[in-house]
Amino acid sequence: MTRNAIEFWFEYGSTYTYLSVMRAEKVVSDAGLQLEWRPFLLMPILIKQGMEKGPFLPFPKKLDYMWRDLERRAKHHNLAYKRPSVYPPNTLLTARVGFVASHEGWCREFTEGVFRRHWVEQKYIGTDTNLHETLSELGKDPKETLLAAASRANKDALKLQTQIAADLGIFGSPTFVVGKDLFWGDDRLEDAIDWARDI
Amino acid sequence: MTRNAIEFWFEYGSTYTYLSVMRAEKVVSDAGLQLEWRPFLLMPILIKQGMEKGPFLPFPKKLDYMWRDLERRAKHHNLAYKRPSVYPPNTLLTARVGFVASHEGWCREFTEGVFRRHWVEQKYIGTDTNLHETLSELGKDPKETLLAAASRANKDALKLQTQIAADLGIFGSPTFVVGKDLFWGDDRLEDAIDWARDI
Repeated sequence: MTRNAIEFWFEYGSTYTYLSVMRAEKVVSDAGLQLEWRPFLLMPILIKQGMEKGPFLPFPKKLDYMWRDLERRAKHHNLAYKRPSVYPPNTLLTARVGFVASHEGWCREFTEGVFRRHWVEQKYIGTDTNLHETLSELGKDPKETLLAAASRANKDALKLQTQIAADLGIFGSPTFVVGKDLFWGDDRLEDAIDWARDI
Repeated sequence: MTRNAIEFWFEYGSTYTYLSVMRAEKVVSDAGLQLEWRPFLLMPILIKQGMEKGPFLPFPKKLDYMWRDLERRAKHHNLAYKRPSVYPPNTLLTARVGFVASHEGWCREFTEGVFRRHWVEQKYIGTDTNLHETLSELGKDPKETLLAAASRANKDALKLQTQIAADLGIFGSPTFVVGKDLFWGDDRLEDAIDWARDI
């Protein structure tokens, strides 16, 4: 990365990541910095920590809080929000497509489309509708793109990407990386920007 | 509570709580609101969730991140910070004294003194030095205060306080409560203030 870049590491199934997907590009670019989209798979990292049920499901009070807090934070950032009826979604295929997109330069557009459908239009991540509509909207051929996403090379590269995330010390999504410093959570985005400016 | 009050529920052993202890009174009072100090014991709540080792110790990467993030956040708020060599500290006796203090109107002064010694002066929570120096500084007789703290009535009342915290849905420290809304984390203090103003 360059000194004026912030890496945005994210998992498609993470709830708070919705906030960052919808607002990070603008606030980072308004600050004169570049945002580099880095999709990865969080689940392998959580499994290694013995958290195969994720950070919220085993803890009902924390789960309740998360939904309430997320709704308030979405409102705070003027983002549309409708609590999805699917949680957690199956994100494997979406992440594979997002990883293809990150190499081809359309990760932002794809990811915003995927999240908007999930969080506003009740077309949930993990469904054909979510993927196909998002790809079609971007002028991508769904069949061709899904073939590329399912290729051995792409699967292996996404596994490597996830290993790189783990090696960086990432344990949650979203995580913003500036140099070697991690900033975990949508609520640390502004800290990451300040940090990148001070380097 | 009154409408212009924010309840500040906290555990003495929580790391991020240091930030709130040192800054909440000022920012809340600058906003024209009252801060109500509510010490409780987090461990019984964590144990019920199967987290008897706390939120960080079982997860080395998250633990590393917490220390780094805390240091940055302390700097951000212009707070002195020296990473304690004791973690987690034993907080039972301190919480019992803090609970006495909360009924007698000196909880803020006591808690600030306890945290300042722990986070700046290497006189750690759980040691006699921390408690005795803090009490003496406030003109309290340590022996007498510790007797009151160890009384059956105070122990039972602190247990009840902790049950009330659990019933409110509290699962971590610090938690700010405004009406029925919870705001978890020092980084939600400003949200809590905005919320209290909008009621």
